[in-house]
Amino acid sequence: MTTNQFDTGLPSIRQVQNWIKEKITVEFRLMTGDLITGRVFWQDHNCISVFNANNEQITVWRQAIAYMKPLSN
Amino acid sequence: MTTNQFDTGLPSIRQVQNWIKEKITVEFRLMTGDLITGRVFWQDHNCISVFNANNEQITVWRQAIAYMKPLSN
Amino acid sequence: MTTNQFDTGLPSIRQVQNWIKEKITVEFRLMTGDLITGRVFWQDHNCISVFNANNEQITVWRQAIAYMKPLSN
Amino acid sequence: MTTNQFDTGLPSIRQVQNWIKEKITVEFRLMTGDLITGRVFWQDHNCISVFNANNEQITVWRQAIAYMKPLSN
Amino acid sequence: MTTNQFDTGLPSIRQVQNWIKEKITVEFRLMTGDLITGRVFWQDHNCISVFNANNEQITVWRQAIAYMKPLSN
Amino acid sequence: MTTNQFDTGLPSIRQVQNWIKEKITVEFRLMTGDLITGRVFWQDHNCISVFNANNEQITVWRQAIAYMKPLSN
Repeated sequence: MTTNQFDTGLPSIRQVQNWIKEKITVEFRLMTGDLITGRVFWQDHNCISVFNANNEQITVWRQAIAYMKPLSN
Repeated sequence: MTTNQFDTGLPSIRQVQNWIKEKITVEFRLMTGDLITGRVFWQDHNCISVFNANNEQITVWRQAIAYMKPLSN
Repeated sequence: MTTNQFDTGLPSIRQVQNWIKEKITVEFRLMTGDLITGRVFWQDHNCISVFNANNEQITVWRQAIAYMKPLSN
Repeated sequence: MTTNQFDTGLPSIRQVQNWIKEKITVEFRLMTGDLITGRVFWQDHNCISVFNANNEQITVWRQAIAYMKPLSN
Repeated sequence: MTTNQFDTGLPSIRQVQNWIKEKITVEFRLMTGDLITGRVFWQDHNCISVFNANNEQITVWRQAIAYMKPLSN
Repeated sequence: MTTNQFDTGLPSIRQVQNWIKEKITVEFRLMTGDLITGRVFWQDHNCISVFNANNEQITVWRQAIAYMKPLSN
């Protein structure tokens, strides 16, 4: 398992930061098989928090993310 | 896998702290596929402990959380 | 994934220590989906060791625990 | 779980760097069972980002990779 | 996820060391659902190596162990 | 989860090094349930790279290995 780094200079962290700024809808594929789709609200060392289409806040744990795919604006 | 930080200044930690204070019912989706729903009682570096609707205490390990979703007061 | 801390001052560690002292029967839900039920015998940094109803000793790895639920005395 | 190292001298990091340079198509098998196939765009400490055949950008988390297999140029 | 410690003073490490010395047959339940049964040959920081009933050597990674159960001599 | 160590003095690392030298065919059982069988080409801190029977190079991440079993020369 990876020991992730929350360093704002890293491309993976800047990419999420950009999705926040640009209000991009992103698909998160989780280890459970769940697909969480929404706009990213904030990220920190442990989690990425999104609002889905029903305007529900879902705080996804980084440890559970398999991949992320930006969909559109 | 993430090396989580238990730093009370982090949004992900403050969010849970707020759920404790506001007595919010929260849904925890676990890596096993289980859904644990309840009010958060305490959190520490390793775990988040909740009381479910049957007033059972369930201590969830952070390592097993895929996402968290606040439901209501 | 969490880097757990084995600090005897943490609520999650003291809770298990209390279950040992009070001879509480505890249910452990594992990442595999297994349910291990028994009385806790000892805990250390890596594992929690329990005796089940057949008096078999089962040493559960912390890394594999999704949640813990105390059942009764 | 492994604490991965992002050290550009490591064979596993240089291999990916070479796939970027040579525009190799690579198959990523994930812990979820997903197969992600594409050309690697960048890698950092946390993630490897690829473009698939539909030119979608998919950012795969290292923590979720089971194996990688280069397919062709 | 746990950052395991390989400290020979820990009960979980001494328990395995004792199984080696006493030639105990042990059942290992893995995250994959596999059951590996055999006598422990050696352990180190990463792995526990066992011989099964067919005298095959199987090197189990600690990261993959859900629980361990001693069966008999 | 385990924080693996890549220390060439460890039995688990030396065992793989020996398989490289002796051209042993090894079976890798992964967390996904996949079985990867082949000869080990190199290992580093993050990965073990093998050639399978079709002479395809497969780079397996240590974090995804449940167990390893040497088959034959």
